Amino acid sequence: MEKCAEIITIEELEQKIYQSLIEKRALRIKQGIDPTSPDVHIGHMVPYHKMRQFQDFGHTGVLIIGDYTAQIGDPSDRSAERSRLSHSQTKANAESYTKQIFTVVRQDRAEVHDQSQWFSDLTLAGTLDLAGHFSVAQLLAHETFRNRLVPGKRLSLHELFYPLLQAQDSVEINADVELGGTDQKFNILCGRDLMRDEGMVPQVTILMPLLTGTDGRKMSKSFGNHISIESTAKDKIGKIMSISDGLIPEYASLAAQMDPQEVRHLMGDMRKNMANPKDIKMRIAREVAGRYHPEQDVANAVSFFEDTVSRGRSPVGIPEVTIDSHGIWIIELMKQHGLATSSNEARRLIRQGGVSLDGGRIIDENLTIHVDAGKAAVLKVGKRRYLRLVGI
Amino acid sequence: MEKCAEIITIEELEQKIYQSLIEKRALRIKQGIDPTSPDVHIGHMVPYHKMRQFQDFGHTGVLIIGDYTAQIGDPSDRSAERSRLSHSQTKANAESYTKQIFTVVRQDRAEVHDQSQWFSDLTLAGTLDLAGHFSVAQLLAHETFRNRLVPGKRLSLHELFYPLLQAQDSVEINADVELGGTDQKFNILCGRDLMRDEGMVPQVTILMPLLTGTDGRKMSKSFGNHISIESTAKDKIGKIMSISDGLIPEYASLAAQMDPQEVRHLMGDMRKNMANPKDIKMRIAREVAGRYHPEQDVANAVSFFEDTVSRGRSPVGIPEVTIDSHGIWIIELMKQHGLATSSNEARRLIRQGGVSLDGGRIIDENLTIHVDAGKAAVLKVGKRRYLRLVGI
Repeated sequence: MEKCAEIITIEELEQKIYQSLIEKRALRIKQGIDPTSPDVHIGHMVPYHKMRQFQDFGHTGVLIIGDYTAQIGDPSDRSAERSRLSHSQTKANAESYTKQIFTVVRQDRAEVHDQSQWFSDLTLAGTLDLAGHFSVAQLLAHETFRNRLVPGKRLSLHELFYPLLQAQDSVEINADVELGGTDQKFNILCGRDLMRDEGMVPQVTILMPLLTGTDGRKMSKSFGNHISIESTAKDKIGKIMSISDGLIPEYASLAAQMDPQEVRHLMGDMRKNMANPKDIKMRIAREVAGRYHPEQDVANAVSFFEDTVSRGRSPVGIPEVTIDSHGIWIIELMKQHGLATSSNEARRLIRQGGVSLDGGRIIDENLTIHVDAGKAAVLKVGKRRYLRLVGI
Repeated sequence: MEKCAEIITIEELEQKIYQSLIEKRALRIKQGIDPTSPDVHIGHMVPYHKMRQFQDFGHTGVLIIGDYTAQIGDPSDRSAERSRLSHSQTKANAESYTKQIFTVVRQDRAEVHDQSQWFSDLTLAGTLDLAGHFSVAQLLAHETFRNRLVPGKRLSLHELFYPLLQAQDSVEINADVELGGTDQKFNILCGRDLMRDEGMVPQVTILMPLLTGTDGRKMSKSFGNHISIESTAKDKIGKIMSISDGLIPEYASLAAQMDPQEVRHLMGDMRKNMANPKDIKMRIAREVAGRYHPEQDVANAVSFFEDTVSRGRSPVGIPEVTIDSHGIWIIELMKQHGLATSSNEARRLIRQGGVSLDGGRIIDENLTIHVDAGKAAVLKVGKRRYLRLVGI
């Protein structure tokens, strides 16, 4: 099980757990679902695994479908105003999203609430009441708001309501704990403030680390470095096999939910050359794919990977990487695999004519390299360095 | 008739008037009523006189009772968050307020709307829609918001909605013109922006000057320098007679609604000693009181004033001032009437024992001087300076 990034506060959490034992009362573990996209990736699932852990101890998972906040768009980590979704779009997204979440979260100890339950009847007077609990200064202290306002990018008034609505959700369902990624810290803390203002015991905030994308950047659909829950077993296996060795511990704990102690052992073995990184990645890949696909599909996907990627392994020990259908930018590829220490160095090597693919010199610094699934190509940098690219 | 402080824009107003003649359509002249207090003073009436002028030309006065904005409290010119009024309080205030306004505004060419008509059904989604039309930067550009936010005074999120609701009113009633005091500029311009955003012809903004209080400061109930519509004729006469000569032109045009040319003539006569300031003030006082009280009440009030104040006039020419039932702070009195050039000088004179009232030395710098109605007292400062205080 992965470690939490931050708990606010650990003492309050201990008190909550203690009281739940004394009073034989299940804690209410809240997490919001932002149905702005129908697509869930394994990074989204990290806090839901934590919810599942609470459920396994007898507590109640409370999922809030943010059908109102989705119309605003979470401004966290957004540098521009989002386009607002219609209610029917968000409803369709929420249905798809919830189904995917229940691959991890137990349905027997879960409640699902739409924000509409309490927001569809909220009057203007009620909205102003809610707004009166928050000061403009407090909201503008939120980094993502400040980062828009200060350089003069448009920040619309309605966007300030995102954290308020999320906070009101906590009041409505009387949350004991709210889970989220570290990027949700401000929103979740607003819930603590509002509950305190309303004379309630404030919810404990548990923030989970964000899972890095397969290419080392933030995991995001727009980078194509995400692993969708709804993708095939073959996609999941191939993508996890493509991560750099440095991401292994993170994927082992956050994606495969391995025990921290086991992760430490594995990493120790790897450093001492007692374990092969490829084997550890395969274990992670099997674990993740196995959660979402029947055993036979996983076995087939593993065979496919071994047949196409490993069969072609070079006897002289050329390192191999997989290239998915999105392809990869040549500069990024060289940096990720140690063929250049910086983008500048990579560009210089190309300009000097020192980079070739299957014997043909690469001239275009903006080239995106594609390799057909099941095929392979060899990248050569300088006189001695090779990388085998395997399409998946 | 008083002059407008600002018209935005004069060209648009001309166009509106031209079109109203062509289309034989009455213009819709909007003004909001802020029913946060049941009490209206003659300063409040200045824009309503302008509305009446439009009505006399056949246009329609549209009064909006701000029963929702009153719950927020107009932040304009407020340095701290207002306490929020209940709906029943504002309703009672609005009834009293409207009755007083109809002493100036014609009821036969007026519509009265409560904001509740459109805001009581406004959903959260609708509120967020409205908020989406405004950027945070635009709202924080409002001086009164900025002046709260920057020094760290609390500015609650709900307060930002005051101009938005006022703007939505203009959309709802399809305003051609919105009237207000110069302190309403930001709020009224937000209405222009919203109408333009909604694809409507934006309302023309007409700003009227603010009437100065009887003591030379901003007219405000909290300073006791206001003239209430609901006060007695005696109070109105006494208070207007107490203004300094410098305020005569302003009171002549804004309070008595004299013609600008006539005001200029009167002031010329006064400078050439062809007119007595006291007589001009009496003419203004009669005009204002006559608007709100029967002729006999005005005549009685004038007699009372002449009997008590003028009868006791000192033959040696001591200047006279009237003191109303609120009394006046000694330091303020000395400053207002040139017996000290600053608060510090006034305090020093008192500490030096140079200030006495009816022969008794004044020691307390915080003294509020009261003079019973119809009685008089003489203030002496230094060796030679006197002021006759007449209670009204």
